[in-house]
Order: sequence, then C-alpha cells, then structure tokens
Amino acid sequence: MSSNCAPSATRLRRRSHHAIMGATLELVSEVGYPKLTIEAIAARAGVGKQTVYRWWPSKAAILRDAVVHLCQDATGVTRDIPDTGDLAADLKAVLRAAADTMSHPRYDLPARALAAAGIADATLGAELVSCILEPQLQLYVERLAAARRAGQVAEGIDLRVALELLTGPLAFRWLMGEAPLSHAYTDTLVDLALRGLAPRAA
Amino acid sequence: MSSNCAPSATRLRRRSHHAIMGATLELVSEVGYPKLTIEAIAARAGVGKQTVYRWWPSKAAILRDAVVHLCQDATGVTRDIPDTGDLAADLKAVLRAAADTMSHPRYDLPARALAAAGIADATLGAELVSCILEPQLQLYVERLAAARRAGQVAEGIDLRVALELLTGPLAFRWLMGEAPLSHAYTDTLVDLALRGLAPRAA
Repeated sequence: MSSNCAPSATRLRRRSHHAIMGATLELVSEVGYPKLTIEAIAARAGVGKQTVYRWWPSKAAILRDAVVHLCQDATGVTRDIPDTGDLAADLKAVLRAAADTMSHPRYDLPARALAAAGIADATLGAELVSCILEPQLQLYVERLAAARRAGQVAEGIDLRVALELLTGPLAFRWLMGEAPLSHAYTDTLVDLALRGLAPRAA
Repeated sequence: MSSNCAPSATRLRRRSHHAIMGATLELVSEVGYPKLTIEAIAARAGVGKQTVYRWWPSKAAILRDAVVHLCQDATGVTRDIPDTGDLAADLKAVLRAAADTMSHPRYDLPARALAAAGIADATLGAELVSCILEPQLQLYVERLAAARRAGQVAEGIDLRVALELLTGPLAFRWLMGEAPLSHAYTDTLVDLALRGLAPRAA
C-alpha cells in the first residue's frame, strides 16, 4: 500500500516526501524526539496528516527515513579524507571540519536529537550506526591503511580501534557538551593519537 | 515547602524518597525517559502521586535527583584509579571494570536512558557532566599526573585531552553499541593511547 501510489501523483509525492523529511528534521531540532508529533510534521510540511500516515506508520519510521535523508545530505559534506601524504595534516583538516559541522546549529540540533533517540532505542540506534557512523569510520580505516602502506603507521595495529582514538573523544565531547570543540582540541587529539600509531624508532 | 516536612515524618520520608529514586531508575530503564510518568513512578514506589508532587515539580526534576542517587551508588563502584606504579596495568584494570559495568543491564539501561535524556536536554546534560562525568574524568587526570611525575608520561601533554583517548572511545562505543566492550578492546585502547603519551626515546 505504502509503495504503490498512483503514477500521476509521483511529482506531488516527491515534493510532499521532501517537505515531510525537512519538517521532521526541523521539528526534532526544535522540540526533541519525545515531543515530535505527526500532526506537527504534517502542519509544518503543509500536507494532510493522512498523507503522512499513508507512507509511515509511526513517528519512529519517519525519523528513520529522515536520518537517511540527513545521511544523503551529509554525504555531500563528508568527503573522503584527503591523502596529501601528510597524515597529521589530513586528519587535522578533517577533524577541524567535523568539529565545525558538529558545532553548527543546523547539524548539531537534529543530529543531537537523533543520537539521543538512537541511544535510547536499540533498533533506531542500529540504523544510525549502519547508515551514518560505520561508513564514516570506514573512511578513517582506509586513510590509516594508506598511511600504513606508506610506513607512517606501525604494523600490527588494529586500525578499527586506532581510529576511535580520533573519533571517539570528539564524538563523546560533542554529545556531552562538557567542553568546546575547538581546532586546538582536535589538533591535540590528532597529535596525541598519531604519536601512538607511529612506528617506533628502530 | 519541599524541604520542610514535619520532623516526625522523617523516617517515612526517607523510605519513600529512596523508593521513588529506585522506581525512577527501574522505570526509566524499562520504558525510557519519554514514556516515564509520575503516575507510574508513584505506583512502582508504593506511594501516592501527591507524595511525589510534594517533593518534585516534574519528572525532569525526579530524574535529576535519581541521577545523583545513581552517582552516589556509582561512587562505591568507581574507586580511585589504583597506582601500583604500572600505569598500563592500572588503566587496563579500570577500563575492564568500566566496560563490565557499562555492559551490565542494571547500569546500562538506566545510564543509557539518562545519557539520552541529557544529550537531548542541555540543562540535564550539564548536570550529568558536573555530577557524574567530570568527577570520573578528574580521577584519570590525577592518575596521569602521577604517572608524569614518575616519568611515564611525556612532559607538556595536555592531560585533560589525553585522558579522552581512553574514555572517549569506550564511552562512545557504549552509547552507539556498534561493537562489543570486550577486555581485548579496552586493553588495546590503553596500549594505543599510552604509546602516544609515553616519553619519546632520547
């Protein structure tokens, strides 16, 4: 039922779908997931409540699709990690950009609301991980693997754990908000982590 | 009003207070913060709804006090980080214990619900940080400072950032649930982080 709307309605459907995704991300930023309602989403998107219910059975389902929507947007922002041959410079550039993005209200508020919902709801959390988190982490694995081939990272290090020395502190500090996400902070993270990953002097 | 109950009611008050805190932590584990209600807390605690309202104006206020309650419990668990002189062994012991605690449903479920609520609500989040997070992180600062005095950590390293190489990955992996909190994982974290903190060979 939900995937078999009349073909003539395709354009309208696409426009409404886009408006609903946008309205969901805006509203979850403004009021948080617990107070998000389908009524408010429909009103903000300028569609009837029944239009929303035709495609999604619950606000959780809308939110999951909105996460995918945010992912697709983020893909345009989260480029591959550059490889200039200078691992520290490349990681510093990426972590500075990530910190700036995470600090920006346009991303911070919906991403924070979604993260909170995912932490409390294991099913949604697993979708956030597979949709947003792991693809991003994989970029770090690939950049560190290239650095290892170039002799800049010691052999035998578990790169999947190693990358968390970079991303874990930044992400947790963002979620907890206990201290600012400054460039000085992300630069220090990169310096400390890379000290640990570098080959030991012979 | 809330702090001036009749003296003769002290014992009953204390018992009810304790029951309400326990009920709140149980219920937030079971249904999550959004579905937590004062009615359910009162029923689970075996007190009247008015008893709850006499002391707390809202479920947010109850939850904040329950966090303090959980803190006090956790203080018995989170001992100081040992100082045997072997920094790696001491940190591995503490991080293994932390991973075990975080994986245990008794702690995992309420702590996860509280973290999610704190991430979505800046006021509650700030209380979680000052009540739970920063005191724990301070223990790492102190242990790393002792290690630096013993020549095991390089001079000039920002210890407040350095400790996040240990705690950030573990906490973020716990929140996202994307991979298990094994002892092999926490041991690897300690090894990689300490490689980065150790004094460089002359």
